Amino acid sequence: MDPYRLTVTQALSNIKNGSLTIEQYARSLLSRVQERDSTVQAWTHLEPDHVIEEARRLDRVPFGERGPVHGLPVAVKDLIYTKDMPTQYGSPIYDGHAPELDAASIIVLRQAGALILGKTTTTEFASTQGGPKTCNPHDPTRTPGGSSSGSAAAVGDFQAPVGIGSQTGGSVIRPGSFNGVYAFKPTWNAISREGLKFYSPILDTIGFFARCVDDLELVTDLFDIEDDEAVISEFTVRGAKFGVAKTVVWPKAGPGTKMALESAAQLLRSHGAEVEEVELSSEFDRMPEWHNVLTENEARATFLPEYRLAKEKLSPFLTGRIENVNKVSRAAQLEAYDGIAALRPKIDEIAKGYAAILTPSVVDEAPLGLQSTGSPVFNSMWTALHTPVINIPGFKGANDMPIGISLVAPRYHDRRLLVVSKAVGAIFEAEGGWERKL
Amino acid sequence: MDPYRLTVTQALSNIKNGSLTIEQYARSLLSRVQERDSTVQAWTHLEPDHVIEEARRLDRVPFGERGPVHGLPVAVKDLIYTKDMPTQYGSPIYDGHAPELDAASIIVLRQAGALILGKTTTTEFASTQGGPKTCNPHDPTRTPGGSSSGSAAAVGDFQAPVGIGSQTGGSVIRPGSFNGVYAFKPTWNAISREGLKFYSPILDTIGFFARCVDDLELVTDLFDIEDDEAVISEFTVRGAKFGVAKTVVWPKAGPGTKMALESAAQLLRSHGAEVEEVELSSEFDRMPEWHNVLTENEARATFLPEYRLAKEKLSPFLTGRIENVNKVSRAAQLEAYDGIAALRPKIDEIAKGYAAILTPSVVDEAPLGLQSTGSPVFNSMWTALHTPVINIPGFKGANDMPIGISLVAPRYHDRRLLVVSKAVGAIFEAEGGWERKL
Repeated sequence: MDPYRLTVTQALSNIKNGSLTIEQYARSLLSRVQERDSTVQAWTHLEPDHVIEEARRLDRVPFGERGPVHGLPVAVKDLIYTKDMPTQYGSPIYDGHAPELDAASIIVLRQAGALILGKTTTTEFASTQGGPKTCNPHDPTRTPGGSSSGSAAAVGDFQAPVGIGSQTGGSVIRPGSFNGVYAFKPTWNAISREGLKFYSPILDTIGFFARCVDDLELVTDLFDIEDDEAVISEFTVRGAKFGVAKTVVWPKAGPGTKMALESAAQLLRSHGAEVEEVELSSEFDRMPEWHNVLTENEARATFLPEYRLAKEKLSPFLTGRIENVNKVSRAAQLEAYDGIAALRPKIDEIAKGYAAILTPSVVDEAPLGLQSTGSPVFNSMWTALHTPVINIPGFKGANDMPIGISLVAPRYHDRRLLVVSKAVGAIFEAEGGWERKL
Repeated sequence: MDPYRLTVTQALSNIKNGSLTIEQYARSLLSRVQERDSTVQAWTHLEPDHVIEEARRLDRVPFGERGPVHGLPVAVKDLIYTKDMPTQYGSPIYDGHAPELDAASIIVLRQAGALILGKTTTTEFASTQGGPKTCNPHDPTRTPGGSSSGSAAAVGDFQAPVGIGSQTGGSVIRPGSFNGVYAFKPTWNAISREGLKFYSPILDTIGFFARCVDDLELVTDLFDIEDDEAVISEFTVRGAKFGVAKTVVWPKAGPGTKMALESAAQLLRSHGAEVEEVELSSEFDRMPEWHNVLTENEARATFLPEYRLAKEKLSPFLTGRIENVNKVSRAAQLEAYDGIAALRPKIDEIAKGYAAILTPSVVDEAPLGLQSTGSPVFNSMWTALHTPVINIPGFKGANDMPIGISLVAPRYHDRRLLVVSKAVGAIFEAEGGWERKL
C-alpha cells in the first residue's frame, strides 16, 4: 500500500520499526498532493522542498530522542500561526502575512515530532459561508464545507492523515461530514487556542480531522486532555444507552440526514444498544438565536482592527457586523452569554445519562457548488454548549456523498467520547452504506 | 510645563493647534525616561532612536489625514505583540522573541495615530506574583504591583501618559492603586485580546492606565466601546446613590484600605450622595475559590506549549499548575465556570441600583520590596464577573503611598462608569489626602 494511504497509527508504527522513513512518507503524501491538487485545491501554502527538508531533519533524530508522534504529518488550517509558513486567514488583508510564530497547538505538535505539511484553505477569517477554492474530493462539483475546508478535504483525499481546524459554528464537524472523515471538536478550552485567529472567544475551539478514531486519540494524547474518570479502554455497544437529540432545528434536516439519523439509531439497536429520543426542554430552543447574537457581537470587537486597517477588503458580512447593522444590543449579548452558560450544566447532566448523544452533523450531504460551504445549523448549539463532539462517517446522501452523525458527551468527557466513537464508528462505517471510493 | 507632564488630552490639543510637535513630545518623554529609568526600571525595551523616527513619521502626516489620537504615546506591557519590538512575556523562554506582529489592540491604537514608546515589564507570563525589576516611582523600595508593573509605573512616573496592561486576577487595578494612577479594566471581551499572551481565556482582559479619566475616555473611544444607553455627558455626585461592597475577603483589608474605603464613603456623603453597604449573598463567597480553580485549570492548557518547549525555564508555580499538583478536577473547573456565570447577571442587577459600587482596589499601600507584587484578592472576583472596574486614586497609606478605590458597574456600562469616575475622582483626588510628589 502506498504510505499516503496509511493511517497515522500504521505509518508511525512503520517509522518506529524502521520500515518507513519520514522522508519516504512525506514523499508519498506529496505525490498524492501532486496528483490531486489541481482537482481538490486544499492548500494555500505547501512547499515540497521545505517539507522534504523537515522530514529529513526528523529522520536524523536518533530513535531514542524522538517525540511520541515523530513523523506525524499535519495539514494546518490557514487560521493558525506556523513560524515557517505564511498565515493569511483567507483574507486579502493578510496577503503574504508571515510572522515567525507558532500557535500553541503547533508548538505542542512540533515538540511531539509532527511534520507540518502546509497551510490549508479557510473561508474569510473562518467567519463567512462563501467557499474558498477547495473542492470536495468525493465530487469536485461540491463544496468540502467550511470554514476548515482545506484540512478536511486534504484528510478526506489522503493528502494528509491528520488536519487541524477550528470551529466557532460548525467549521470542524460539518466539513468532517462532507468529506467522510472523523472530526473532533474537544471541550472548549481543553486545547489552547492561542495563535488561532479570533472570531468569537467564547465559541472558538481547535479541532482535528483524521480517518480513524485511533489517529484522533494519538493527537488528543499530546494535549494532555483527560477526563476526571479513568478512561475505559474498550466500550461495547451492546447494553449501552444512547440518546438521540433532534433539537429545535430538526425541521432543517434534509432527507439524507433524516435517513442517516434513523439508520444510526437502528444500527445501534441492532447491535444491542438501547436508543431513546432526548427531549430537550424549551430553554434550549433559544440556542440558535443566542449563538448568532454572540458571533455578531463578539465579531464587533474581534474584527475592529481589520476594519480600521482596510475595511474595503472585508466582506460586507463582516463590515456589517462591525457596524452592527442588525442593532444587536449589549443586553442581548449578555442574555446570550448568561442563557447559554445556564444550559451548559444542564446538557452535561442530560448527556451523563448516555454513552453518547447522537445528533445530526449536517443538514444533508455536501451541496453543489462552492458558493456556500453549507449550513452550521446543527453544530452551533454544541459549540456554544462547549461539549466535545465527534463526527462519525458512514452514511450517504442521495448522490452517494458522505453523511456523518455527531456524537456528543458532557464537557471534559472527551476521552470517553473517543472510546465510544471507536465502537460506534466501526458499526457505522461497516454497515452505514457509504463507501469511500478514493 | 514640560510636555511629559501633560495629560494626553492636553498634549494632543497642543499637537493639533501646532504648538507642540510629536517629536518634541516624544523627546520630552524620553528625557524623563532617561532621568528616571535607573530608579524605576519600567521598560524591557525602549529604543529612543526608533521612537524619534516614529514621531517624525507621525509629524509628517498632514493634519487632515491624522487619526483621532495622532501622537498619543503609549507604554505597552510586554505581554502584547508589537511588530517592531520584541515581545518576551517576562519569561526566559522568550528571550529575544520578536515576531513581526501587532496585537489587535496595537493595530487599533496605531491606526488612530498612537506612538508606541516601548515595552514594559511584567511578571512571568503575567501569572506569578514575584516581581520584575521595576520599582514603585513613589518609593523605589516598594513594589509597583503586578503583573502590569511597568505600564503602571511608567504612567505613575510621567514616563508615558497612557499604558496598556492586562488583568487575569488584579494585574491592572492593583498596580493602578500602588502607582497612584487611574486604571481601567473594561468589560471582558469589549476589547479584543488577540495578540495578548493567554493565561486564562475566561478571565484575561485588556486594561489601561492614565493620570486622568479624560485620557481613559480618549482611549476607550478608539475601541468603539458603547453602552446600550446613551452616555450621560455629566454626572453629579449630589443625589446619586453608591454601594459599598466589602466582599468576603474584607478581613484581608489592611488599615490603609479600611481607612480609604471609609473616607471614600464619607467624602461622597459629604458631597450629597447616598452611600449604602451592599450585602452580597453567600453565593458570592465562593468567588475567590472559583477564580483560583479557573486560573489553575486554564493554565494547564495555556502553558502546555511552554512546558513542552522548556519546562526548566518555567517557575515552579507554573510547572505545578501544568502538572496539576493540586489535583484540581475538571468537575471543579466546570463548577467554577458555571457558578461564576450564574452570578454575572446577579451582580449586574445589583450594580444597576447604584451610580457605582465602591470596593477595595488593594489590601493596602504597596508593600516593601520586589519579591512580591502584592495580592490581587480584592480584584479577582470582579475580573471573573466580567464587570468594568476603574481604580480611582486619592487616598494614602501609613507611609504616604497611594491607595485607590475601585468603582464597579454592570457589564457593558463602561461609558457610564467612566463618566461617574470623573466626578468621583475629582473629589477623591482633591480631598482624599494623597499628594503626588513626583
